[in-house]
Amino acid sequence: MFKMVALFKKPEDTQSFDEYYFNTHIPLTQKIPGLQDVKITKITGSPMGESEYYLMCEMFYESKQAFKEASKTDESKASGKDVMKFAGNLVTFFFGEEHNG
Amino acid sequence: MFKMVALFKKPEDTQSFDEYYFNTHIPLTQKIPGLQDVKITKITGSPMGESEYYLMCEMFYESKQAFKEASKTDESKASGKDVMKFAGNLVTFFFGEEHNG
Repeated sequence: MFKMVALFKKPEDTQSFDEYYFNTHIPLTQKIPGLQDVKITKITGSPMGESEYYLMCEMFYESKQAFKEASKTDESKASGKDVMKFAGNLVTFFFGEEHNG
Repeated sequence: MFKMVALFKKPEDTQSFDEYYFNTHIPLTQKIPGLQDVKITKITGSPMGESEYYLMCEMFYESKQAFKEASKTDESKASGKDVMKFAGNLVTFFFGEEHNG
């Protein structure tokens, strides 16, 4: 499947981040038409100790084309605008096709 | 499930990287006892254009404890040594528990 990944660096106030992320941002994101699955990983560390990253969100679509169609919707634009508002300085986005390794 | 993520920046020579990664490194990794699943995403871009990242590998274990046990094995040490040898300057590792969003 095709997935869009949002990787967040650790916020200064993790409790405020979590409250906004899970109660406001994720419900907005879940309204995006064509979005088939969302996986969230709370990052708890790395082999070398603490990680600079805090959370990874993976958003799955049937295909790149389905993602492109979804991106044109008001719901996608609202989610994108929202994430940049509360975490624009923390988030990195990238996308690609997921395969079994 | 618990997952270890290896996120690779774009190598200078993607063809050599791919040859080594898929023919040598991944077969080494797949020998790690307790490793239940491997997902690989070839990163093709970002909403802002090109991504600095090239590939993400997710390695799934039943639990953090299972991962810790696996990490003690010769197979895990061989895989870790190998990745640092061919991509030590490109790779970032982090881990955490994956949930449905």
